[in-house]
Amino acid sequence: MDQRLRFAKELTGPLRIPPGSEVDLSRDHDPASTAGVRRKEADVLLAQGAALLAGYQDRLAAQDTYAVLVVLQGLDASGKDGTIKHVLRGANPQGVLISTFKEPSAEELSHDFLWRYQRALPSRGKIGIFNRSHYEEVLVVRVHPGLLAAEHLPEPARGPDVWSRRYREINDWERYLVDNGVRIVKIMLNLSRQEQARRFLKRIRHPDKNWKFSASDIHERAYWDDYQRSFSEMLSKTSTSWAPWHVVPADHKWFARLATAAAIVGELADIDPQYPVPSPADRAMMAQAAAELAGG
Amino acid sequence: MDQRLRFAKELTGPLRIPPGSEVDLSRDHDPASTAGVRRKEADVLLAQGAALLAGYQDRLAAQDTYAVLVVLQGLDASGKDGTIKHVLRGANPQGVLISTFKEPSAEELSHDFLWRYQRALPSRGKIGIFNRSHYEEVLVVRVHPGLLAAEHLPEPARGPDVWSRRYREINDWERYLVDNGVRIVKIMLNLSRQEQARRFLKRIRHPDKNWKFSASDIHERAYWDDYQRSFSEMLSKTSTSWAPWHVVPADHKWFARLATAAAIVGELADIDPQYPVPSPADRAMMAQAAAELAGG
Repeated sequence: MDQRLRFAKELTGPLRIPPGSEVDLSRDHDPASTAGVRRKEADVLLAQGAALLAGYQDRLAAQDTYAVLVVLQGLDASGKDGTIKHVLRGANPQGVLISTFKEPSAEELSHDFLWRYQRALPSRGKIGIFNRSHYEEVLVVRVHPGLLAAEHLPEPARGPDVWSRRYREINDWERYLVDNGVRIVKIMLNLSRQEQARRFLKRIRHPDKNWKFSASDIHERAYWDDYQRSFSEMLSKTSTSWAPWHVVPADHKWFARLATAAAIVGELADIDPQYPVPSPADRAMMAQAAAELAGG
Repeated sequence: MDQRLRFAKELTGPLRIPPGSEVDLSRDHDPASTAGVRRKEADVLLAQGAALLAGYQDRLAAQDTYAVLVVLQGLDASGKDGTIKHVLRGANPQGVLISTFKEPSAEELSHDFLWRYQRALPSRGKIGIFNRSHYEEVLVVRVHPGLLAAEHLPEPARGPDVWSRRYREINDWERYLVDNGVRIVKIMLNLSRQEQARRFLKRIRHPDKNWKFSASDIHERAYWDDYQRSFSEMLSKTSTSWAPWHVVPADHKWFARLATAAAIVGELADIDPQYPVPSPADRAMMAQAAAELAGG
């Protein structure tokens, strides 16, 4: 195995949540971990990962059989945007489809809860990124149940078992996707409360970053424990054999980017896309064409 | 119970396929049946059904909790377009969303097989009609496996169990929809081979109907038995408690329309949508507004 690939696999493995395990984020997962990687190696390793990714992406498009969907979740300031920027530099933008999900529109709210995410899926040969995703429907909506708009939902979709029902529905949907060629890489950027405060302060103190800060960021911090609990249950219930979660320590941005690149590269390596081999008829056609072209 | 509604329920019941039953279309279902209804009653009964439907539709929109999805399947000339036209006259067009599915585009083909159907779902308060539907993916695609485009599919989606897998995936998806408020009425218009021939001849002999005829119609007749088998298995495997199939005898157009209207009205009656009751605060606001308006 390629040495860079082995490194990616070894980095990713311990971050993966085994299906069926009981996750307690604040107890079991250190947001400041760097898994023994040193800061000064990180740039070279990330550049290697990005190069590997670009090569795989080219074959993924040529083979035209699989898509890769990267699901990126994490609290405000956990580094989602920066991770996308740094991990996908070097990728062919034509083969990447990035979807950011903010507050749903009235049109989206009046459909079933997975509808807007299904519409945004990458087609075969592409890498899709969900910057926030269908998991918001069991995170922010769970922390703020008013967002469920329960007065418009039929009984099964708003009763006491709505969250376990949604976990099951999400798992079923993801299994369907994987079986039909959309492979899924789920990344949770795990940030500490202290590091979030530091990043917010930076946004307030640097005029160029002011636009990134809003009053709701502070408001949401009051729900920190609720979010930790919702994330923990989500990780416990929706890390499946077909689409496992990775909890990526995010207090060090350089490490979060490296680990995310490693997880994506690892999935691409499992797919192992190949350039299609031309049929004998294709070869004959090309030989003919080459002869004509050479003749001017 | 309203007498018109009782009639609709009594007409629909025997057409419904019990979940888990083994269907043999050509053996068990007579396309020429009219279930004891006489031709001369039909117009009045259909007008009554259309009026009931319009009333329910108004409350469905006001309640804004459920959508109804009508899935209409049937061979060429089985009367799908005419049924839609006659059953929905009287309905408010703003609350109806009709989607016709023909050959998929390249963009649609490069997504998972349910993708284009998910995009076309009705929002809450609306009645959606699928004129042909996701069931084509286990009908025409099964009869002509070349349409599967298997060379672009990953193993699970093209292996020997692709059809049973698709039945399961469709059932899972429909269960999710029903639980989230999209109620489903599935109608299979069951036409005899002889009546199809008569209708094709009519299309060939009447200049105004020529446009409805194409050479592929005759070509597809060669696959009659394959279609009967595929329909039979589809009905056996995807008639579920949450979304049962109705096999509607379609040799008599007037009967097919009446029975389809009855099935839709029956589902709307089960939903039993109600106008929202204003809250005390709403009432006070309206009393205030009325006083101001009356004062000029």
